Amino acid sequence: MTRHAALPGFRDFYPEEMARRNQIFSVWREVARRYGFEEYDGPPLESLELFVEKSGPEIVAQLFNFTDKGNREVTLRPEMTPTLVRMLGAKIKELPKPVRWFSTPQLFRYEKQQRGRLREHFQLNMDIVGETSVLADADLLSAALDVLRSLGLGPDDIVARYSDRRLLHQALLALGVTEENLPVAYNVIDKVERDPREVGIKRLTEIGLDAKTAEEALELTSLSLDQIASRLGTGEITDRILAELRLYQSTLTGLGFGEYIRFDMKIVRGLAYYTGIVFEIFDRRGQLRAICGGGRYDRLFHSLAGVDVPALGFGFGDVVLGELLKDRRLAKNYTRSADVCVIAADESARIAAIDVVRQMRSGGHSTIFNYRALEEGKVDVGKQLKYAVTSGAARAVIVSGSDATIRVKDLATGQQDEMTVQQFQQRYPPAR
Amino acid sequence: MTRHAALPGFRDFYPEEMARRNQIFSVWREVARRYGFEEYDGPPLESLELFVEKSGPEIVAQLFNFTDKGNREVTLRPEMTPTLVRMLGAKIKELPKPVRWFSTPQLFRYEKQQRGRLREHFQLNMDIVGETSVLADADLLSAALDVLRSLGLGPDDIVARYSDRRLLHQALLALGVTEENLPVAYNVIDKVERDPREVGIKRLTEIGLDAKTAEEALELTSLSLDQIASRLGTGEITDRILAELRLYQSTLTGLGFGEYIRFDMKIVRGLAYYTGIVFEIFDRRGQLRAICGGGRYDRLFHSLAGVDVPALGFGFGDVVLGELLKDRRLAKNYTRSADVCVIAADESARIAAIDVVRQMRSGGHSTIFNYRALEEGKVDVGKQLKYAVTSGAARAVIVSGSDATIRVKDLATGQQDEMTVQQFQQRYPPAR
Repeated sequence: MTRHAALPGFRDFYPEEMARRNQIFSVWREVARRYGFEEYDGPPLESLELFVEKSGPEIVAQLFNFTDKGNREVTLRPEMTPTLVRMLGAKIKELPKPVRWFSTPQLFRYEKQQRGRLREHFQLNMDIVGETSVLADADLLSAALDVLRSLGLGPDDIVARYSDRRLLHQALLALGVTEENLPVAYNVIDKVERDPREVGIKRLTEIGLDAKTAEEALELTSLSLDQIASRLGTGEITDRILAELRLYQSTLTGLGFGEYIRFDMKIVRGLAYYTGIVFEIFDRRGQLRAICGGGRYDRLFHSLAGVDVPALGFGFGDVVLGELLKDRRLAKNYTRSADVCVIAADESARIAAIDVVRQMRSGGHSTIFNYRALEEGKVDVGKQLKYAVTSGAARAVIVSGSDATIRVKDLATGQQDEMTVQQFQQRYPPAR
Repeated sequence: MTRHAALPGFRDFYPEEMARRNQIFSVWREVARRYGFEEYDGPPLESLELFVEKSGPEIVAQLFNFTDKGNREVTLRPEMTPTLVRMLGAKIKELPKPVRWFSTPQLFRYEKQQRGRLREHFQLNMDIVGETSVLADADLLSAALDVLRSLGLGPDDIVARYSDRRLLHQALLALGVTEENLPVAYNVIDKVERDPREVGIKRLTEIGLDAKTAEEALELTSLSLDQIASRLGTGEITDRILAELRLYQSTLTGLGFGEYIRFDMKIVRGLAYYTGIVFEIFDRRGQLRAICGGGRYDRLFHSLAGVDVPALGFGFGDVVLGELLKDRRLAKNYTRSADVCVIAADESARIAAIDVVRQMRSGGHSTIFNYRALEEGKVDVGKQLKYAVTSGAARAVIVSGSDATIRVKDLATGQQDEMTVQQFQQRYPPAR
């Protein structure tokens, strides 16, 4: 007999969970539509080399990879960006820029089994390709925040913390960190909230900073944009970055998200990948992992697809978001439901009742009937009414064989009315 | 540099293809909603044994199966029914019957590479579990046909051919086929349209039928329901099956699909699996493989999940349907589009324009703007207008800094009007 469980780390979506997943998906899609993004998708199974090229061979330990029956090295996709770059890289020259694309792929990672750690999740990916303007960066974060706002989360619930990899670069160079040691310094700053202070200091002194400069590097992470600006002084590159960040901030404010954002030098994200503004969205209580993260990656198309095109994007998973919605009681409650349950009053009304089913569905109503108790020779009103109630129908529609009127019973209030099907359809438009 | 192609047999969905996929998905979901089905989903990766138990070890040659990093034998799902049985088997006792569930999984088979043969497809699965009534069979086929009708296909385009495994069973026994030879006879009848007549005769004589009886067995497949009835004579089992088939037919007619259906003994489907009425939907021109197939499988829950519960369902793939829609010019044409492109008339209108973007999106309009030409110090009306046109926006909304009115330019007709944002939102509700 079959095992009654999904594989570890994989979710079954019973109608209750499916309704919550659909709640998130419908907001993802609705926001993407409002922001003018076009939908795409790629295969969940891809060539392994596609991901090794982007992330290095270390990634393989975390993949569901295998050799297929045609001797190809393949893997379930752990992220969407390489597929995006593969697909767009082949066509970007013929498309009007910027390209604004979104997708909602299911992604797979062979994570070590930990409590609640999943091996699959869904992720909204939104990317803008072929645009250097910082207004694109602002519009992109605006879309991510609009998803959360549309789900009922306000600036007291969530915050987008943003930084700029170029600014961090400038600031670390100014402190005497060499280009080759930047990755270590980024990593220290990325972990500044999790690691004890001494650990960070130790690692920075190991790459040649003296203790005082190491302290200064860690202090960087708590400075405001103005403080960073005065610390760095003027200079062509610095001035341009600062101007862009201010335009980013003012545009986000203009787009309605000023209260949701905060400059924060602690946001670093992936090492070799990002090249400009980066952001992560967190719940204000700080109980959950990042809800969404992204930023500008102007060199990836060049390194993976050989086309030189700027790009930015984010990934927004369904799991942390789902936890947050549950926690704030914003997750949808699911019950079985239908607009209408059609009932034959007696044997003579059987055919008429089936015709009413047909009419109701043609008019867009979610319509059910009790199969067994509407069979020839087996019509049973009591059973049909009971079924209407247990099925969560909003209304029972009782059809008698004698005339064209139907008896409509509101199953919440018990109130009954008589009308024609046409009157019903006008009075109670279908719930969609 | 990355390979620019998906794996063989896997599809990339660029926005054009995605729009066609979404056209199909939205009808699938809309019909499922109107018929009162609840949505579920399971993992695309499952335990290999789940499918071997249902289909035997031969299936493995057709699977994307592998050993995962935890030493589990796993596979990409080739079909949805075993997952349905696994999920429902565990909970069926606590659920009110019948359960009506649907899902739209992506499924995977390692098919030998042939021209146009895919290794993945999406499939609408609709199943009714816990119901013996033939009205459930009628409602289920009705839903499948409603998908096609909702997409614009009429009774001249498609036909559902149905039969009953029990009737075929009775008819073959009456001709002297033994129980143990039934699978061969089913197989011959299943292939009667593809194999030369002599091949069928030969295989039937090999299992002990004389030439004349073999001819009669093949003739069975072209008889009408009434002809079968008179051939079989009366008897308790036969009478019950015939009465059910007549109720099936009359219910489907009552539900509006009388012209779409045809009794046809040639429809057999899977060997060990189906137990009652079975059906397949074809295009009338007979150019394509079956569009959809299904039927009653009352014993599968018992053999796979140890619970004795009747069930019926169908699988309805996106590939043949997509070909049919293209062929009949019913497939959606895709173009980039947006409701509104917001344009600043000059530098002083920059902030106001961004605010109009915010308002339009809050009102539900799909709204874009040209990032580069709306930057501080770079406002360029010509560029913004050109962008509005190439982006497929329906209307350009031109904002001037001086007052609260906007200039609305219909980009199809060139006509211009002045109004407030509020008036715009009332006059042009968002296209969803």
